[in-house]
Amino acid sequence: MRVMGVDPGLTRCGLSLIESGRGREVTALDIDVVRTPADMELSRRLLLIANAAEYWMDTHKPTAVAIERVFSQQNVRTAMGTAQAGGVIALAAARRDIPVTFHTPSQVKSAVTGNGAADKNQVTAMVTRILGLQTKPTPADAADALALAICHCWRAPMMERMAQAEAAAAEQKKRYEARLAQVRKEAKAR
Amino acid sequence: MRVMGVDPGLTRCGLSLIESGRGREVTALDIDVVRTPADMELSRRLLLIANAAEYWMDTHKPTAVAIERVFSQQNVRTAMGTAQAGGVIALAAARRDIPVTFHTPSQVKSAVTGNGAADKNQVTAMVTRILGLQTKPTPADAADALALAICHCWRAPMMERMAQAEAAAAEQKKRYEARLAQVRKEAKAR
Repeated sequence: MRVMGVDPGLTRCGLSLIESGRGREVTALDIDVVRTPADMELSRRLLLIANAAEYWMDTHKPTAVAIERVFSQQNVRTAMGTAQAGGVIALAAARRDIPVTFHTPSQVKSAVTGNGAADKNQVTAMVTRILGLQTKPTPADAADALALAICHCWRAPMMERMAQAEAAAAEQKKRYEARLAQVRKEAKAR
Repeated sequence: MRVMGVDPGLTRCGLSLIESGRGREVTALDIDVVRTPADMELSRRLLLIANAAEYWMDTHKPTAVAIERVFSQQNVRTAMGTAQAGGVIALAAARRDIPVTFHTPSQVKSAVTGNGAADKNQVTAMVTRILGLQTKPTPADAADALALAICHCWRAPMMERMAQAEAAAAEQKKRYEARLAQVRKEAKAR
């Protein structure tokens, strides 16, 4: 699996590319931060981000895109911009038929450090260790994008198994209900 | 001015097209609501909305796009989806070099009804009257999209004059500061 991790943002948008191997083996292939000026019109900023993400997808051909899910942040305006940046990147992936998964910050922290409430330094330190990097990835947005892609590599197989189990359970329930309805109908007919 | 009004949303996204004439003259040209299923993957929903908005732009050739600015809503998850839907439409406009303006719900209500805290019924009633429609536009999302486009037609000239005044003031300030620096330099030299 070749995962593109995205830490969305209007001012700084972190992008990463991770290749997963056997088990929990992960390798960092690339990293970038897209910046857009704060005084630029919002739609133009989204265009710069979308263009950069599309170029990245067309160059690196990821098989999956993982984006940080925004919940409420301190600043509503910032949260909205972050959601919009993530939205245009999800759109770019959908246009290329690349599946998109959103992970919450606590899912990412939990996957990478084992603690859903870990701070930025802990996350960066674990990302550096997991990927066997010589130095800490900077800026923080790049480290977050790497953490997100690692999280996806590790969570995706589990999420797929859960989805399969859920689908199987739903199928079983449907068959059970159909049989129940049949039995009731027969009882009524008698 | 030919304004495309957008009431963004993942489940229902209202689109409208308004042509402005002299003074406060406005004419409704088209209206539509794009729906996407709630059980569809988020990136696929954004793709459906983007495709519909792009088709609308390429067919109707609006000269301006007005989108409702999302502030905090009751439900953070809904607000994020709304922001993302608005984001992909803003992106589509930016790709076509169409200027995008965001208006807050209270700016829209205030422009259309004279009351920034008007309820949905008042807004719909005023939109129906302003546009001289035979019946109320339905659903509510379509009426909101019309209100948004009307708001833009009426606010845009004022916003442009304000931007010009601000630019002129900034220019004047720059000239003043340059003169001040020159005078200080001369005083120091003496």
